[in-house]
Amino acid sequence: MIKESIFRLVEKGSHGRKHNLLFDYSIMTLIVLSLIAMILESMPEVYSEYTFFLDGFNVFSIIIFTVEYCMRLYVSDLTHPSKSRLKSLFRFVFSTYGLIDLFAILPFFLPMLIKIDLRFLRALRLTRFLRVLKLNRYNDSLNLIWMVIKEKKSELAVTGFLSFLILLIASFIMYYIEGDKQPEAFPNILESFWWAIATLTTVGYGDVYPVTGLGKFISGLIAILGIGIVALPTGLISAGFMNKIEKPSLNKVEDKCPHCGHEIDYHMN
Amino acid sequence: MIKESIFRLVEKGSHGRKHNLLFDYSIMTLIVLSLIAMILESMPEVYSEYTFFLDGFNVFSIIIFTVEYCMRLYVSDLTHPSKSRLKSLFRFVFSTYGLIDLFAILPFFLPMLIKIDLRFLRALRLTRFLRVLKLNRYNDSLNLIWMVIKEKKSELAVTGFLSFLILLIASFIMYYIEGDKQPEAFPNILESFWWAIATLTTVGYGDVYPVTGLGKFISGLIAILGIGIVALPTGLISAGFMNKIEKPSLNKVEDKCPHCGHEIDYHMN
Amino acid sequence: MIKESIFRLVEKGSHGRKHNLLFDYSIMTLIVLSLIAMILESMPEVYSEYTFFLDGFNVFSIIIFTVEYCMRLYVSDLTHPSKSRLKSLFRFVFSTYGLIDLFAILPFFLPMLIKIDLRFLRALRLTRFLRVLKLNRYNDSLNLIWMVIKEKKSELAVTGFLSFLILLIASFIMYYIEGDKQPEAFPNILESFWWAIATLTTVGYGDVYPVTGLGKFISGLIAILGIGIVALPTGLISAGFMNKIEKPSLNKVEDKCPHCGHEIDYHMN
Amino acid sequence: MIKESIFRLVEKGSHGRKHNLLFDYSIMTLIVLSLIAMILESMPEVYSEYTFFLDGFNVFSIIIFTVEYCMRLYVSDLTHPSKSRLKSLFRFVFSTYGLIDLFAILPFFLPMLIKIDLRFLRALRLTRFLRVLKLNRYNDSLNLIWMVIKEKKSELAVTGFLSFLILLIASFIMYYIEGDKQPEAFPNILESFWWAIATLTTVGYGDVYPVTGLGKFISGLIAILGIGIVALPTGLISAGFMNKIEKPSLNKVEDKCPHCGHEIDYHMN
Repeated sequence: MIKESIFRLVEKGSHGRKHNLLFDYSIMTLIVLSLIAMILESMPEVYSEYTFFLDGFNVFSIIIFTVEYCMRLYVSDLTHPSKSRLKSLFRFVFSTYGLIDLFAILPFFLPMLIKIDLRFLRALRLTRFLRVLKLNRYNDSLNLIWMVIKEKKSELAVTGFLSFLILLIASFIMYYIEGDKQPEAFPNILESFWWAIATLTTVGYGDVYPVTGLGKFISGLIAILGIGIVALPTGLISAGFMNKIEKPSLNKVEDKCPHCGHEIDYHMN
Repeated sequence: MIKESIFRLVEKGSHGRKHNLLFDYSIMTLIVLSLIAMILESMPEVYSEYTFFLDGFNVFSIIIFTVEYCMRLYVSDLTHPSKSRLKSLFRFVFSTYGLIDLFAILPFFLPMLIKIDLRFLRALRLTRFLRVLKLNRYNDSLNLIWMVIKEKKSELAVTGFLSFLILLIASFIMYYIEGDKQPEAFPNILESFWWAIATLTTVGYGDVYPVTGLGKFISGLIAILGIGIVALPTGLISAGFMNKIEKPSLNKVEDKCPHCGHEIDYHMN
Repeated sequence: MIKESIFRLVEKGSHGRKHNLLFDYSIMTLIVLSLIAMILESMPEVYSEYTFFLDGFNVFSIIIFTVEYCMRLYVSDLTHPSKSRLKSLFRFVFSTYGLIDLFAILPFFLPMLIKIDLRFLRALRLTRFLRVLKLNRYNDSLNLIWMVIKEKKSELAVTGFLSFLILLIASFIMYYIEGDKQPEAFPNILESFWWAIATLTTVGYGDVYPVTGLGKFISGLIAILGIGIVALPTGLISAGFMNKIEKPSLNKVEDKCPHCGHEIDYHMN
Repeated sequence: MIKESIFRLVEKGSHGRKHNLLFDYSIMTLIVLSLIAMILESMPEVYSEYTFFLDGFNVFSIIIFTVEYCMRLYVSDLTHPSKSRLKSLFRFVFSTYGLIDLFAILPFFLPMLIKIDLRFLRALRLTRFLRVLKLNRYNDSLNLIWMVIKEKKSELAVTGFLSFLILLIASFIMYYIEGDKQPEAFPNILESFWWAIATLTTVGYGDVYPVTGLGKFISGLIAILGIGIVALPTGLISAGFMNKIEKPSLNKVEDKCPHCGHEIDYHMN
């Protein structure tokens, strides 16, 4: 059957069957090439010389991605089995990878339907790059990282909130201190916030910096707090990874009561 | 009783009873809105156009916060039970959240009593933002972070002291090396200290940097020590989080064999 | 026999026999001296004055390194025993340290054979510095670090990939936002990528930075994500080191009671 | 006896006996004050006005520190008991705190003996600040940090060596790439090294940065490696702290064989 062939082609590529891997790698290559094309398009001198080639490749890649998307729509009842055909379709379209695939072709078709500024939308096409993560090899690692972040999400949120508060208070204070001396660098609290972020994250571009003694004192304080803002999430994530790595070893513990010899189901951690 | 209703309203909002959550969320919304108003006030073009609206909102929010504060004062004998009414009042006023609530309204009332420069004081109003932490969801995370920092406080203090010493020595040396070559960048040791902080925290604004060979050598050394200054607290906090996470799971281990009832001495970390 | 003496000289130097250590330390000294010579050569005023001495030392060190390399080639059947003489030779030449030694002399002999731009090639000579790691003392530490990195390589690869994706998306967005306002700072996506790296790694040279409000917002976001990009690999490596350090100690646990000889099932992490 | 009183005064101050604490705190206060005096001396406008006061205080503090040093010399046979009086003296003079105390007064007396440039020497006086660490409270924390660093010293040395190699190779490559384009920024390899350190440590002053495409690529690579250079020592130190914290809890394990009831001395980790 054609449907089953398509299903195997688009879904099973990276899962062992070697004659289908070609499809996966072709799509990956096309993704990388279309990315390079996007970068080249942004260079006026390159684009003016190779307009025909770059535009042609753009149309070509969109056609391929659209055909692939339609194929996935067609076999959605196999990849996302549901009670009704329509529900399967919906489940695929709104699945993570369904949305990724949609975003990759949308910026091409949308201006045909509605009048819109494309430029930001085109960056959406980059999300297609995320499909590399679908490759089997990286699934476990991505899951591990994701689980650790999820497990610590409330602690990370509190750290983020405290950082935000530090940024806010520093912006207010800095605006009141430096606003008069450097009206072009600290014209209002929003601009002051820009300085605060550049300082707390220790980026320090050097476009905005305090000149008064008090301003330098506050700035130094924020920079030192920035070290803590790095230390807290790092410590949390370290502990999270440790915890995740230790668990499997615990499950392997063979538990027998030394008195009667029965097995015991200790579920630790 | 009115008192009990007020008590439930101001204190139990975020603890399960759903019809009181509205109060909590209204206050939170008002806090966020008054924050945005403060940012908008700092922009001359916005403030000159919307003076009436912004000033009006300011008065409105202060009234609400004042009413809320009075309500909390009124029920302080319930929230902070003590031997006498006055002691309850005192215990509330000088509690963490009591002070936070006071700081939020003080910058409005203080200039009526004494002549004072308001600008720094107004930043105090931001502390009200800390009340978000009162939300039940984040209590445990905040406590965990706080406990870890408290547990490691002497090690962190030593790290901080060593950093301070490195900063100090570097400032002195740098002043003696670069002071003659760049009298405007390193005019005295305090200004030299500003350079040292920007280097050790790896912010590196670029307003002050060494130009002599020896100065660059010292600067490089400080920047490398900066990595250690990040590594030490991060390592301490990582170890602290690990320790905290492991402890509770140990208490849950059942040390009796479910088959024969004998105790088993499993000694897990 | 001469062969065995040479073998002991070039291979066993740092492994206990003290009268051969002299050879090892002489080579190390020569490596450091040739490194200093390379730095001095790069200074026009120094080179013009000491041309004869620096060129002479260069020829001298290359001769020594070439003689040493030939000696190692000669004893390759002892250091890399194989079925045939030729195979031993090949195994040595393409071993890590064989390649390091080759790279150290190649930039001198290559221009005699083919016409080539030497400058980049000469940096290859620096790899000889890697031989310091051959010193016994650091072998275990290097192996430990290497094992931890290798163990976490797929997680680190995923982190690297996600960082690359963030960099890419940020470059695209920034080019679309700031490209018109600052055509010299963000002329195309490649230059935008340069800004993105400087921001995500928190280097922040200050040669390129956003000036629009939206650009600053994106820039702040990237800088904050930069903290996560530091936290993830640090957390992974911390957990890796913990794991490596704990394992050996576990193997040492004696699981027999010294009094009655019964086995005890102590299950420690 | 006078000797014993002096001994109690200078050595036992911070160890419990309350009537001697005054001496310790006086010395601490004097250290802090002399530090502030040094900073004030560096400001020409302050020094010219308060010359008499600052110079006077300088002489006063040196006298006190000298008297204290002589007292410590006097009781050195009690604090550093040895076979002979002279050996005790030597042991004290060359002990850590003996040297610290000597450095604090040396910059004052040295120019009387030999003609010397004082400026760098005066920074030595800052080492006296290290005596704060002698306060009992911080001893354990300092020891813990010191032990962890010492335990990981060979791994940290390897990390440092690899960083140095990366810096070196980057400096060479960058000099060959950017040397022609920016002869004032990359005039030789030493200056190139300055750029490399500012990039690897993510300080990024912005005084030196690449302008060519290849140079930016190398720079980005170094900045990304900089994240690893932070991650490695942090991971090592985290693991070290974990290890140190876990040990005591292991010693508390009550070990009894479940078969015969005898205690077992398991020394884990």
